[in-house]
Amino acid sequence: MADKQVGKEKRLTIDELATFCKRKGFVYPNSEIYGGMSGFFDYGPLGVELKNGIKQEWWKSHVQQRADMVGMDGSIIAHPKVWEASGHVANFTDIMAKCGKCGNSARADHIIEDKAKVATAGLNAQQLGELLVKHKLKCARCGSDQLRIAQPFNLMFKTTIGPSEGSESVAYLRPETAQLIFANFRLVQENARMKLPFGIAQVGKAFRNEISPRDFLFRCREFEQMEIEYFVHPNKIGSCPYVAEFGDYELNVLTSDMQKKGSNDHKRMKVSEMLDKKTILPWHAYWLAFEHRWLTGLGAKAENLRIRQHVQTEKSHYATDTWDLEYDFPFGWKELEGIANRSDFDLQQHIKVSGKDLSYFDPETNTKIVPHVVAEPSLGVDRTFLVFLFDAYEYDVKRENVVLHIHPRLAPIKAAVFPLLSNKDELVAAAKKVYDELRQEFNCFYDENGSIGRRYARMDEAGTPYCITVDFDSLQKHDVTIRDRDSTQQKRVKIKELSSVLQQLLSGKKNFGEI
Amino acid sequence: MADKQVGKEKRLTIDELATFCKRKGFVYPNSEIYGGMSGFFDYGPLGVELKNGIKQEWWKSHVQQRADMVGMDGSIIAHPKVWEASGHVANFTDIMAKCGKCGNSARADHIIEDKAKVATAGLNAQQLGELLVKHKLKCARCGSDQLRIAQPFNLMFKTTIGPSEGSESVAYLRPETAQLIFANFRLVQENARMKLPFGIAQVGKAFRNEISPRDFLFRCREFEQMEIEYFVHPNKIGSCPYVAEFGDYELNVLTSDMQKKGSNDHKRMKVSEMLDKKTILPWHAYWLAFEHRWLTGLGAKAENLRIRQHVQTEKSHYATDTWDLEYDFPFGWKELEGIANRSDFDLQQHIKVSGKDLSYFDPETNTKIVPHVVAEPSLGVDRTFLVFLFDAYEYDVKRENVVLHIHPRLAPIKAAVFPLLSNKDELVAAAKKVYDELRQEFNCFYDENGSIGRRYARMDEAGTPYCITVDFDSLQKHDVTIRDRDSTQQKRVKIKELSSVLQQLLSGKKNFGEI
Repeated sequence: MADKQVGKEKRLTIDELATFCKRKGFVYPNSEIYGGMSGFFDYGPLGVELKNGIKQEWWKSHVQQRADMVGMDGSIIAHPKVWEASGHVANFTDIMAKCGKCGNSARADHIIEDKAKVATAGLNAQQLGELLVKHKLKCARCGSDQLRIAQPFNLMFKTTIGPSEGSESVAYLRPETAQLIFANFRLVQENARMKLPFGIAQVGKAFRNEISPRDFLFRCREFEQMEIEYFVHPNKIGSCPYVAEFGDYELNVLTSDMQKKGSNDHKRMKVSEMLDKKTILPWHAYWLAFEHRWLTGLGAKAENLRIRQHVQTEKSHYATDTWDLEYDFPFGWKELEGIANRSDFDLQQHIKVSGKDLSYFDPETNTKIVPHVVAEPSLGVDRTFLVFLFDAYEYDVKRENVVLHIHPRLAPIKAAVFPLLSNKDELVAAAKKVYDELRQEFNCFYDENGSIGRRYARMDEAGTPYCITVDFDSLQKHDVTIRDRDSTQQKRVKIKELSSVLQQLLSGKKNFGEI
Repeated sequence: MADKQVGKEKRLTIDELATFCKRKGFVYPNSEIYGGMSGFFDYGPLGVELKNGIKQEWWKSHVQQRADMVGMDGSIIAHPKVWEASGHVANFTDIMAKCGKCGNSARADHIIEDKAKVATAGLNAQQLGELLVKHKLKCARCGSDQLRIAQPFNLMFKTTIGPSEGSESVAYLRPETAQLIFANFRLVQENARMKLPFGIAQVGKAFRNEISPRDFLFRCREFEQMEIEYFVHPNKIGSCPYVAEFGDYELNVLTSDMQKKGSNDHKRMKVSEMLDKKTILPWHAYWLAFEHRWLTGLGAKAENLRIRQHVQTEKSHYATDTWDLEYDFPFGWKELEGIANRSDFDLQQHIKVSGKDLSYFDPETNTKIVPHVVAEPSLGVDRTFLVFLFDAYEYDVKRENVVLHIHPRLAPIKAAVFPLLSNKDELVAAAKKVYDELRQEFNCFYDENGSIGRRYARMDEAGTPYCITVDFDSLQKHDVTIRDRDSTQQKRVKIKELSSVLQQLLSGKKNFGEI
């Protein structure tokens, strides 16, 4: 299938991106040979490298490089009490519409948004039910208009632990990684001797039994999260020592007030202006700006990002305030990262249900306190993967192929190595030698098939930032041509300097013009 | 609790290691505040770094550095047909013993091994039943001797996808990552344009509903695997082009023949000797040696490793031959890594059940063939984690503390930075400056609490290879003391050279004596 010729003006649809991802080996539908499995995907050879790159860059910038952060990795299946305490057993539900005629069930908000084109964010069951009737919405299976609000559907996947004879019981696949952090809060804080304010970070899979998974990787049943719980002394939630560095940082902002007035258009604001107008609390502003800078630093486009405050009715049961970092997906502005203020809700719940002391001993005041989570940056790995691909994708009219301008630090393949001709043994041998050496340090790809132009095109599509060609001059002068993906500029580099040149390019210490 | 004083002669028990892991923040029992969850564990701040380090080192050496390998990352929940085709729905079962009096169930082999001290590897249901009677084994719950072999118990966790009203169906949490590779074989091969022989690698969680999880991380219900399926042309399974490099490599070997003769003692053999005697096929020998070298290269002790061939009756339903790389755990020699020859069993099964063409087009003969998996190196992340900790742990009598001689590349914290005194502002400021810079590149830890000796001891226990102290001389001469964990030797290094010195030490380009 021909690739959509999407340049800088026009953007891909999500289905077009899915097609591209399958063709290049980024992402496949899970179990495709058995007809697929809705809401589940497998990452192919390029996809696994990009996904791992995202997770590693996140860990480096959010954990390793920060003195106030420490990591952990909890299990996917935990004690069911964890999910009772958190409120997920009672509250983690979707509002369903059930057909009174044929019994078919679907998410009420999706039916209304798809068929009546009405926004449903923050509406309760009664309001959704009224919209079903008002717009005379019909059952997708039998066409009857007997759609009525039904029992809420809990989104946690259930399973059974131990022999099925009742000796052990129901457990859940975690619907978020966050609760593992709360359950282990005291152990982690004591082991790592962390002092407030500090964060605990975690990366891992989570599962939600979505009624209607949709939009490729956007809403999956199995997905991966990069989450932080950032803990602050309850007396110090009003100020943030780090936010000053973002004073002049500009964000596209949509507050709940603006939405209440009926607007869905964000406006550009400086962080300092938001703080002056008390639009947002300092810790919240800090984390939104920090996350925004991380995403744009790795290639997300600032014009496709905005921050949006949740309106009162759409907030989760645990949140006192939530801001989403939204991305302008082809299907609208949608949550990329949610940053909730969970206050002390979760720790207090676990204290209450477990009967254990999860407080923090404050050495300054010699008192025990329960910290507040002023911000919970919760970023989807798969959604971030989509964002980096969308903002990297360009159909280059001059080259007549797709160029994936993915950030070199995230590129699945860092360099490709080609012999100029595949039928000259000495070129092939020299190119393989270069490849064998570079591969020790970088993810590389060797290719001798087709013309050099065709090989460049394949690597442009894979997002490979540098292509190295071994030619007849190389045999005499021990140098090679290195070609830059984005500019197509070429330079000669000594073979013995290749590794350090690549290191400098990939680390950003030099750009291509400087080598 | 005092640490077990285990030196080079005596070794820790698994429970002692678990206690150490919890105290230092390597691993916690999952949901400990709710009484724990048998078979599930959470990795703490040090544990997540060690575990990530193991996975990254494995990926680098098994995927990035090999021209014949490519990676992928499949989902945990796949189409149930995958598990029907693989045989797991029918065959992935444990043989259970059920009490005729009280109804309690337990694994028959575990009861026999624990109570009668008889090895059960490879015994079938009838043989296990005879042993239950012969040894008059009693029910652990009610004490009756009415234990009889019951229905086999399938180890896959089940769940339900979609609304529970029957529109969608049962699915399983994957009990191994391998099947995702087979189901995606053709897509991966074509996308990455791989030519036989080649491997597909994957790292990820797997789940088994173990009746009696035991021995800390050794037998968990949720665990992580690093797996490869290595595909070879069916005409070329008899020779391996890479095995020659391991000709003189020595392994502790226990063949099925030796076991049939009643021996459980391995003998030391060269790979070339094994090949000469046709003890093992070349591809199998190659992968066992490759894995052995990888493990010992990162700190596993060769004397604690052996390779053992499965006897006929213990092989899995898919395997034509299996060798385990075993480790001498405190509870006996047990599987660390299984390396099965799966032949073309899995691809043929998926071809049969899906009706799809999963063959490989051989460009040399212009024919379609179905490749054989000559080796499936399947290594448990959590078991590897145990091995590296066991072989790193030493109670140093002279220092009077535990020293974790973990390989620097795997060490959770690469360097700690201390001011000599915590009440001298200029020392604290200078040390924090060093810490702030090093943290950009390495996982570091800053500590000003307690005496320098106490700080060294804490870092020895955490396995931190290098400790850096900023003292009064540092303020004048811009240098610091760097102390080597294993030798306790100390050197002075210029602050501006610290980063490159650490880089050289951690990459193995220099040892401590050479800086």
